[in-house]
Amino acid sequence: MLKRYLPFLEWAGGYNRDTLTCDLVAAVIVTIMLIPQSLAYALLAGLPAELGLYASILPLVAYTLFGTSRTLAIGPVAVISLMTAAALGNLAIQTSAEYLAAAVALASLSGMMLILMGIFRLGLCANFLSHPVISGFITASGILIAASQLKHILGVEAHGHNLVDIAHSLWQQRETTNLITLALGVTTTAFLFWVRKQLKPMLQSFGMSAHLADIVAKTGPVLAVMITILLTWNLDLIQIGVKVVGEIPTGLPGLSLPSWDLDLWQQLLTSALLISIVGFVESVSVAQTLAAKRRQRISPNQELIGLGTANIASSLSGGFPVTGGFSRSVVNFDAGAETPAAGAFTAVGIALAALFLTPLIFFLPQATLAATIIVAVLSLVNLGVIRRTWNYSKSDFAAMFATIMLTLLDGVELGIMAGVILSIMLHLYRTSRPHSALVGRVPGTEHFRNVDRHDVETDACIITLRVDESLYFANARYLEDRVYDLIMQNQQARHVVLMCPAVNLIDASALESLETINRRLSDSGVRLHLSEVKGPVMDQLKRSHFLDQLSGHVFLSQFDAWTKLHYTAPN
Amino acid sequence: MLKRYLPFLEWAGGYNRDTLTCDLVAAVIVTIMLIPQSLAYALLAGLPAELGLYASILPLVAYTLFGTSRTLAIGPVAVISLMTAAALGNLAIQTSAEYLAAAVALASLSGMMLILMGIFRLGLCANFLSHPVISGFITASGILIAASQLKHILGVEAHGHNLVDIAHSLWQQRETTNLITLALGVTTTAFLFWVRKQLKPMLQSFGMSAHLADIVAKTGPVLAVMITILLTWNLDLIQIGVKVVGEIPTGLPGLSLPSWDLDLWQQLLTSALLISIVGFVESVSVAQTLAAKRRQRISPNQELIGLGTANIASSLSGGFPVTGGFSRSVVNFDAGAETPAAGAFTAVGIALAALFLTPLIFFLPQATLAATIIVAVLSLVNLGVIRRTWNYSKSDFAAMFATIMLTLLDGVELGIMAGVILSIMLHLYRTSRPHSALVGRVPGTEHFRNVDRHDVETDACIITLRVDESLYFANARYLEDRVYDLIMQNQQARHVVLMCPAVNLIDASALESLETINRRLSDSGVRLHLSEVKGPVMDQLKRSHFLDQLSGHVFLSQFDAWTKLHYTAPN
Repeated sequence: MLKRYLPFLEWAGGYNRDTLTCDLVAAVIVTIMLIPQSLAYALLAGLPAELGLYASILPLVAYTLFGTSRTLAIGPVAVISLMTAAALGNLAIQTSAEYLAAAVALASLSGMMLILMGIFRLGLCANFLSHPVISGFITASGILIAASQLKHILGVEAHGHNLVDIAHSLWQQRETTNLITLALGVTTTAFLFWVRKQLKPMLQSFGMSAHLADIVAKTGPVLAVMITILLTWNLDLIQIGVKVVGEIPTGLPGLSLPSWDLDLWQQLLTSALLISIVGFVESVSVAQTLAAKRRQRISPNQELIGLGTANIASSLSGGFPVTGGFSRSVVNFDAGAETPAAGAFTAVGIALAALFLTPLIFFLPQATLAATIIVAVLSLVNLGVIRRTWNYSKSDFAAMFATIMLTLLDGVELGIMAGVILSIMLHLYRTSRPHSALVGRVPGTEHFRNVDRHDVETDACIITLRVDESLYFANARYLEDRVYDLIMQNQQARHVVLMCPAVNLIDASALESLETINRRLSDSGVRLHLSEVKGPVMDQLKRSHFLDQLSGHVFLSQFDAWTKLHYTAPN
Repeated sequence: MLKRYLPFLEWAGGYNRDTLTCDLVAAVIVTIMLIPQSLAYALLAGLPAELGLYASILPLVAYTLFGTSRTLAIGPVAVISLMTAAALGNLAIQTSAEYLAAAVALASLSGMMLILMGIFRLGLCANFLSHPVISGFITASGILIAASQLKHILGVEAHGHNLVDIAHSLWQQRETTNLITLALGVTTTAFLFWVRKQLKPMLQSFGMSAHLADIVAKTGPVLAVMITILLTWNLDLIQIGVKVVGEIPTGLPGLSLPSWDLDLWQQLLTSALLISIVGFVESVSVAQTLAAKRRQRISPNQELIGLGTANIASSLSGGFPVTGGFSRSVVNFDAGAETPAAGAFTAVGIALAALFLTPLIFFLPQATLAATIIVAVLSLVNLGVIRRTWNYSKSDFAAMFATIMLTLLDGVELGIMAGVILSIMLHLYRTSRPHSALVGRVPGTEHFRNVDRHDVETDACIITLRVDESLYFANARYLEDRVYDLIMQNQQARHVVLMCPAVNLIDASALESLETINRRLSDSGVRLHLSEVKGPVMDQLKRSHFLDQLSGHVFLSQFDAWTKLHYTAPN
């Protein structure tokens, strides 16, 4: 019981020197990777760079204590930072202090929602986000993030939370492009793409092991950061208009409670919910993929609590919403992390950076961070999945397409909401015709098969309809129509048998439809029977008056129904 | 084809003197019943009484041409009038001319939506409104309408679109109660209740036929109208504060286009959608019930067009939203209407009333109309269905309860929306665990049964999971968890077979889950197989890369899978 809520008790007992070594090595590598990422994602969220570091200390410790994945690496991630920027952009905010307070409130609200969802075991809520919607959303977000970073590459002032606004804003500012910044930004972007695509094979051709080459290639952004810092400092690029991160307060964040501003919280409610769900879905799927590789187990409901406490920890230390990131978790896993302690050691690494490295970051060009982001997020853009979804299912494609277009043209919040609503609507629409078949008896047997596909025996007085799906509100009325059509076409019919071997559920709407069918058939002089009703469904039906009103019988088997009605019916 | 869109062509050919007589008799009876109802529902919608008459002329003619029900009677109905009042109450409206224009715009918008839904064959959309939600909504609306009419019975000024506001408003005005109005209102209400409950048996005991007694009893409101008009006029009750309908313009409504105010239309969009769907669901269920009694057929999609043109006709003649009403349709049916021509004759009757009877209506007390409404709507209140739903299904009850409480405490729009969203959420939640069972072979046969219920043969290397439901986004991830748990518990397992005889659909999310399961099982050295996949599902899977990646095989039958894996597997 205690282990369920404090999962670190699971592994803390068996912790030894070997695990420590593995975790420390992984922590060093992840720390190096996380420093530029944290700074970049803070800027993406519209926040001061140091907040990225603050959001990468306490949240990691919280997840170490409450998370169930052995290798998930927590911190600011691209999509959540974009959603944070969009959420805060909706507010009528005047000062940067207000903006900061709103980011902290958002982390706090999202953390509380995640914890509540965890306590009430609502991890299943994430299921409402279908795969096509989430992958469309991630692709569109990747494009949107890359576009939003172009201003740093061009060295201009621009804004906007959708592609149209960003493009318009960039176009208006085209005259003020800073060519030195542009040269720096384009070179860094090209270098990072080269590192990502070419460095690993090159290092391997020099005889480096694949594993080591991979890890060295992952440190590319750090190299870019160091080189551009040196360049900016040596050539005094600030004088010719290259924008840098600038002064960052040295030291660790102070702890404080988020502002208790009910009005602000209410405005952030929807955004916090969307951030919580998207963050959870992303994080849990990374965690599950990694856990499966080592036959480990994660618990989705406990993950909600782990992510929730991480966000609360972030807000207490003045940070913004965080979640489990894909690339850093893979690095953590590949670098050999054995337990979540690696996360705590990473937190120590980031804390040391916040204490000692911030003066060096002064000269870091914003264009370098933008290049880091662009290269990272373009790997999120997956156009292949759009084509595959189109080929597989037009209805799933429709939900995905709506998500992508609305995210790009209006923004992340409308995009994801429209996707969720549309995919639910399409699902209900798609299931609004329950699969069913008219069946007849295979001569000489007790089997009944579809009359359209098999040569079976039927009786003009008896219509037997096999229902192949659970009956619920979205398909109940269709069943009414179907039965009614059948008796209109068979004026001789005196009995309708609904054969229910695949009906797992009859909800109150479907019950009412069955009552209506029964009543209408009675009005037309036809009796309604059921056959092969499953046990739990029968138990539920017994709690209503339907069985008392039923004009016919409930038969245990369809053969039973056939024997009674076919051989003993008056005509 | 032409007959599908102009259903009157179906019956117009066979029209003869007998049908004419039947339709005329029904039209006279319905006209008498409809006059007070129309006036009352216009007042309920917050509109001048004459609009009720205007909304009962052209819409009936339009439905005669485009509707498919032979006996449905169109016009203003209680719930839709309440929703109209709520929709218009949301707007910041200054003058009564603006209020009138908004009502006309609402009818026009709702008419266009219905027609569009009909053209795109979206009649199935009505299925999203589950039975518990709609019946909870109707019950709550009945209570709300009755409460809103108390002000006329008390003779005070009050307002509000939910129970709290109405009660508060009545309480504040309690000092201004007009005792004469109260006496008149209470007496009329009591009389109407007596007519409804006692008159029919009494007339029958005097030897009148049941059918005639029923029709006479239905004319009770007309009697109340006539008596109270005479009383008010004779005793000069206006002088002592009894409020009357007052001056009504004599003559027919002029035709005009609704105002083209985009801003107004946008504000009315949600309300118009809710009114359209609720109106359609109500109307179509009445139409279906009546059609079934005579083995006639209605077409839901053509009904959308019929109701849509009726609403457009209403807006062109300065009316408000209309739909098919329950009680008047039953009267029409019982009075022997044979074709929709009865509706056109009723329209003529109402037009004559608008031309000649309006001077008489001057003295009609508002309290009489309120009493008519109260007695009519309290029959909508069905508390028994609440208990029955509670007994049958807690989840359906939750959706119904939320609908009732929010409708009463906040208003109709939030009530119905919350009900729809909650019932969809609960359905997705309820189906988020697909029904599945571990199966084994019944020894010596080719049958496979649940291992928990039957004594069957299994193999520690082979896990066979029978999936009993279609796989889609809400239950796909649960399947991932289920399979993963199974192989964690059976470390010997080398094969997982998913047996899919009841899977009618695998959507893109479920496909991705299957791919994930396949990949993760491969990582753990376990092969994934499928068996008994239905034809259409197999065809769809072939359009993806899943079958190429599948680590195992697709077996036609489970017995086939068992034979291959059990007897030939290496261990």
